[in-house]
Amino acid sequence: MKQYFKVDEWKVIEEGFDPAHNKVAESVFSLGNGRMGGRANFEEAYSGDTLQGNYVAGVYYPDKTRVGWWKNGYPEYFAKVLNAANWIGIDISLNGEQLDLAKCKVLGFRRELNMQEGYLKRNFRARTATGKEVEVEAIRFNSLVDDETGAICYSINPLNFGGYIKLTPFVDGDVVNKDANYDEKFWDEVAKNTWDDGAVLQMRTRKTGFEVATGMKYHVALDGQAKRIDTQPVTREKYVGAEIRMNIEEGQRITLYKYAANLSSQNHPKEDLVELTKNVLDAVCHKGFDTMLAEQAAAWAEKWKHNDIVIEGDAAAQQGIRFNIFQLNQTYTGEDDRLNIGPKGFTGEKYGGSTYWDTEAYCVPFYLATAEQKVARNLLLYRYKQLGKAIDNARLLGFNNGAALYPMVTMDGTECHNEWEITFEEIHRNGAIAYAIFNYVRYTGDEQYLADYGLEVLIAISRFWAQRVNWSAQRQQYVMLGVTGPNEYENNVNNNWYTSTIAVWCLKYTLKVIDDVKRLDTGKYNSLTSKINFQDEQECGKFKDIISKLYLPYDDNLQIFLQQDGYLDKEQTLVKDLPETDRPLVQKWSWDRILRSPFIKQADVLQGLYFFEDDYDVETIRRNYDFYEPRTVHESSLSPCVHSIIAAKLGDIDRAYEFYLRTSRLDIDDYNNDTEDGCHITSMAGTWMSVVQGFGGMRIKDGALSFSPLLPAGWEAFSFRIGFRGISLKVLVSKNEILIKNQSNQTLTVNVYDNGYLISPSSETAVPIKPLH
Amino acid sequence: MKQYFKVDEWKVIEEGFDPAHNKVAESVFSLGNGRMGGRANFEEAYSGDTLQGNYVAGVYYPDKTRVGWWKNGYPEYFAKVLNAANWIGIDISLNGEQLDLAKCKVLGFRRELNMQEGYLKRNFRARTATGKEVEVEAIRFNSLVDDETGAICYSINPLNFGGYIKLTPFVDGDVVNKDANYDEKFWDEVAKNTWDDGAVLQMRTRKTGFEVATGMKYHVALDGQAKRIDTQPVTREKYVGAEIRMNIEEGQRITLYKYAANLSSQNHPKEDLVELTKNVLDAVCHKGFDTMLAEQAAAWAEKWKHNDIVIEGDAAAQQGIRFNIFQLNQTYTGEDDRLNIGPKGFTGEKYGGSTYWDTEAYCVPFYLATAEQKVARNLLLYRYKQLGKAIDNARLLGFNNGAALYPMVTMDGTECHNEWEITFEEIHRNGAIAYAIFNYVRYTGDEQYLADYGLEVLIAISRFWAQRVNWSAQRQQYVMLGVTGPNEYENNVNNNWYTSTIAVWCLKYTLKVIDDVKRLDTGKYNSLTSKINFQDEQECGKFKDIISKLYLPYDDNLQIFLQQDGYLDKEQTLVKDLPETDRPLVQKWSWDRILRSPFIKQADVLQGLYFFEDDYDVETIRRNYDFYEPRTVHESSLSPCVHSIIAAKLGDIDRAYEFYLRTSRLDIDDYNNDTEDGCHITSMAGTWMSVVQGFGGMRIKDGALSFSPLLPAGWEAFSFRIGFRGISLKVLVSKNEILIKNQSNQTLTVNVYDNGYLISPSSETAVPIKPLH
Repeated sequence: MKQYFKVDEWKVIEEGFDPAHNKVAESVFSLGNGRMGGRANFEEAYSGDTLQGNYVAGVYYPDKTRVGWWKNGYPEYFAKVLNAANWIGIDISLNGEQLDLAKCKVLGFRRELNMQEGYLKRNFRARTATGKEVEVEAIRFNSLVDDETGAICYSINPLNFGGYIKLTPFVDGDVVNKDANYDEKFWDEVAKNTWDDGAVLQMRTRKTGFEVATGMKYHVALDGQAKRIDTQPVTREKYVGAEIRMNIEEGQRITLYKYAANLSSQNHPKEDLVELTKNVLDAVCHKGFDTMLAEQAAAWAEKWKHNDIVIEGDAAAQQGIRFNIFQLNQTYTGEDDRLNIGPKGFTGEKYGGSTYWDTEAYCVPFYLATAEQKVARNLLLYRYKQLGKAIDNARLLGFNNGAALYPMVTMDGTECHNEWEITFEEIHRNGAIAYAIFNYVRYTGDEQYLADYGLEVLIAISRFWAQRVNWSAQRQQYVMLGVTGPNEYENNVNNNWYTSTIAVWCLKYTLKVIDDVKRLDTGKYNSLTSKINFQDEQECGKFKDIISKLYLPYDDNLQIFLQQDGYLDKEQTLVKDLPETDRPLVQKWSWDRILRSPFIKQADVLQGLYFFEDDYDVETIRRNYDFYEPRTVHESSLSPCVHSIIAAKLGDIDRAYEFYLRTSRLDIDDYNNDTEDGCHITSMAGTWMSVVQGFGGMRIKDGALSFSPLLPAGWEAFSFRIGFRGISLKVLVSKNEILIKNQSNQTLTVNVYDNGYLISPSSETAVPIKPLH
Repeated sequence: MKQYFKVDEWKVIEEGFDPAHNKVAESVFSLGNGRMGGRANFEEAYSGDTLQGNYVAGVYYPDKTRVGWWKNGYPEYFAKVLNAANWIGIDISLNGEQLDLAKCKVLGFRRELNMQEGYLKRNFRARTATGKEVEVEAIRFNSLVDDETGAICYSINPLNFGGYIKLTPFVDGDVVNKDANYDEKFWDEVAKNTWDDGAVLQMRTRKTGFEVATGMKYHVALDGQAKRIDTQPVTREKYVGAEIRMNIEEGQRITLYKYAANLSSQNHPKEDLVELTKNVLDAVCHKGFDTMLAEQAAAWAEKWKHNDIVIEGDAAAQQGIRFNIFQLNQTYTGEDDRLNIGPKGFTGEKYGGSTYWDTEAYCVPFYLATAEQKVARNLLLYRYKQLGKAIDNARLLGFNNGAALYPMVTMDGTECHNEWEITFEEIHRNGAIAYAIFNYVRYTGDEQYLADYGLEVLIAISRFWAQRVNWSAQRQQYVMLGVTGPNEYENNVNNNWYTSTIAVWCLKYTLKVIDDVKRLDTGKYNSLTSKINFQDEQECGKFKDIISKLYLPYDDNLQIFLQQDGYLDKEQTLVKDLPETDRPLVQKWSWDRILRSPFIKQADVLQGLYFFEDDYDVETIRRNYDFYEPRTVHESSLSPCVHSIIAAKLGDIDRAYEFYLRTSRLDIDDYNNDTEDGCHITSMAGTWMSVVQGFGGMRIKDGALSFSPLLPAGWEAFSFRIGFRGISLKVLVSKNEILIKNQSNQTLTVNVYDNGYLISPSSETAVPIKPLH
């Protein structure tokens, strides 16, 4: 479905209605505000193919695990992202005939996502089975300002008939998860309450006991004039609605304003939820739809001011990157350290859990550069708070002495994954969590974080690595057996280079941070070591021994790092020799064939070279890139961005651009035929990295920003805005120069290529672009 | 629960009733006749803890697969052994009070399995909640002679009251599988029919459409005198019963004779099932219970004549081996080449499917030596008939050109397993299937089988191996990547020695059989190669190339075969150093820890040395045994027997005996705390092998039997009976000699140790036992 949506620099546009694309459109047009969000389902009834989805951040259900064969260490329950009460619904009846686009002749249809101002607008003209023609406009948004609310302005215009139109705005809590293991329902009703111009439904999740009150309030206008209405409440189990009947004439226009609020017991006392929801509804209703929408546009403008990327000369690339940034901002605002960034955000329920290593490896760099420091810090604190559960998780697997294994997937710190080859073996996630601490401190300079929180996490992770390796008497080295690397097309391998490399790095970094914290705050250091019973000398001794003696596979002949033991025993065919019909392998080949093939799902050795590029010379990186790139099928959305950044570093701008395109329009163009399940939210941060770290060549070195920019051939110029240690700057890369604008009142020190520049407050510096050799 | 049952040479006896042991007893006392069977559930109601189980051979249900994450190549459905209509039920009401041992005070209880004559007898005395005391005796068997029937003689004696006793014999088709993936019911009712002294219920399985008519017929005696009765039919959905009311006096004895029949649409036209079931019931009822029981005893005597093992001086060992032989004979009679030997037989529903590589590796040798030739031949034909599905299965995984991968678990040839590390990787099963052909021909001399069926299977299996290896440019050898060996405590390893060794053996054996069949029957050979498009020269060339260049891991230092690449990188701890509290590992350790440990679930390298012992000198076998045995935890019931046989070969009689004990009383003593799920039927054949091949040292060499016996220290003597190429012989090993009786009218040639002996018809030869060095 290439280019189903229209290209526009600030919008995603659907022209004409194609039911076959509806679920993809529902994903792409999803709305969220970090607190609540949902798919772009229709307000009115739709009996065609749809995936209904409304989500409340942090509200989950521990679905009973479904496995073929239970293995000790598996979690019994599996946190599912929960489909919550539908608050967008407005049932429309035209002289008794239900409006349902699946049963109409659709005469015109347009849906657009306005990313600049943060709303969704839908217009259509349709003829019902009995010939009634209506024109509808629906505008909807989830408010960034009042982040427990959403609002809808829904107008109907009967074109060729008059009579009774009945509008039934409702809240429906009788929803199911498509992705439920045993087709259970997850919500019970607690209370409902209806009044003249609104209603609240309070629901409780089974097992977890989260309570969410979802309320609505509404008013009506006729041809733009507010109109008093009589409503008739309609309630049933898990449902509150209100029938609004109006006798109108052909050509008149009824507009229903529906305000909704979702209040969760995570943030409010359960017993007050109904009352508080009413209050919130009263407040936004009083503010009114137009004011809310204006505030929404202003809030989005403020976001864009800090994180927009402008690409000149390539509208598709421009649309792609803005869509990625827009979705990231819709998914996570960083206000709440209990929340995280699900791989589908508020766009679908697939995968379960909200937190993968994607957060640390991909999202933290994005939020570090584009949001206040507290946002990335909250992402780190999320893991800090779950350290106890990570220690429990490791204990379940047989580790002790405070060793921590963070879960592969989680909602509240408990492991939610149950394939042994992932759950037990894809342990490099622990490394990404340590790396994020390093990355945060490198970017922000906030060393106090290490003393307060970071070191405790680092020691627990290092203790895990120290127990996870074992001494090979045969090799006279430590080895790391039975792991799964980032390349999940290999399972249970020995000595995955990436995993072992990041383990060594974690141990080294922990030792460094121990020294730093000791120096910085001896008292805190001592109280920490006593709290966690850290045997300083002995444990550090063990860490050092492993650092010096951990086996890291290397092939002398090819002079490359070996992805794992035995990788070169595989038949060394290349991706270019694969018939197009065999791809994607995960859909076309048996798992058996995939596992035994040399093909790499996503950056693995290259992920390590990306993280630790300063430890390797360019020729080493090039040799490994030249070897592994042709074997990589990029069947994870997390892969192309890393390849793009490395290609850019190696000066291979054409490949860098090719990889960039794959990632930036992944969902808009539904590259992998899976956008109907939801968008690939976390990989969107990778797209941002491709531009800023790839084409912009942005790095932090010795506490200062540096750039080594490249401009893709088809682009006139591109610019991005970032924040760094209190300084806001804009970087514009054009054909001839890189222009750095210091938009703050501090002096900025930057390196461009290898030279340092001082840029005074509110001024700019231009440096000529180095031509590619 | 060591020694819950009483030791007796011909019986298993339970004295006293312990509800906590009831499910174990239900398994151990199971009855079967190869065609139908079930657990030793009570006839009367029992509201305590029980696993109801009645099974009809070959009737299965394809339950929808349950997996955490679908992988291409998995089967969508999973054949489940089906719990079928309960035909044993007799509801007892004493003046309106239901007899239910869970609600009674049990004053006396005895259950015994008479293995010599093939029936189950239960006596108890119980006092109900209201104080009524009754004495009950129930005798039940599944007829070997009339193999679609079973019979029950159920007597009640009211000890302290008189009045109305109501007996309700019934057939209940409203049963469930405990082991159902989605708690579905698997049976629908087709028809039911009741008449004066009987009833039939016909049920159909969902999806598979098997129909089974289960009928009953009954008569009653009072104090031993036949009594006319009036019955009242009771029917409901999936249930037929008949109420029999009798007004009796204290001390009288009512006896209900209940005959049951199970006729399946596998063997009869669906539309005739009810009528035919009536006919069968009429016939057995006319024969009468006592005659049936006498015929049963005679049929079992005939079985024992051919396969009894007598152990003198060790009653527990005697009981153990007879229990194993008894269960094997109950499970499979070899009459029907559509049937096979489920790992739980008719004793439980766990595991699903009926056929594992256990059949070929363990059961074929037992039936070869103890039953007519056609029995083992039928087991081979079962696989021959499923060759097409094995080829389909391989194609699903990406193989072509007629390569076959037999399923890991199956009912009808379709794969039923869905863990990738087993389904796709535990491919050595293909080798066991080829080995069984070799074993059959070696034992029987039936070379015609090769031309008719065997070669076609061998070529398909060899084609699989030829595609499953790949050329390692680095090693300049073929390698076999991504396999799971018999030791399932390692998954997805490279170059498992056992798998690669059996692959090479298959290729060699296929080449040999090609030569033999070419010579034996050129026409047949040519028509086969043309049928399967076998490119003789080219494909044989490839086979030879792999034979000469497949990498088989070996450690020069230890001079042992390496279980797989990297095995010596593991921490080399030994089983003796494991705390007792850590065992069994599968229950106490996480799967992660098990996988990374050096501990071996079951014979792996040693399985290969057992199969191919002639290819290795004794010192090689000893070095490998000395290395691997201390690392083996024997957490598969299939493991100790192989170790026992190798230990015996190496003259380590004490260890051989120790392993024997582990296998022979596994279920009677519930060693693994899992007998409640059913008995370990297939491993029982391994127990038999431990005695005959281990202590007896029986082998076939150059078409002749050979023995090299050893006597365990505590035994006075042991003897076994076997058949070999039309000759029936008895082998008696005592402290000083081995006595071989030729019970046929042909001359027998045998080797004892290294000398040959000719034994005339109906005569015997004694050879002195060689002392252990």
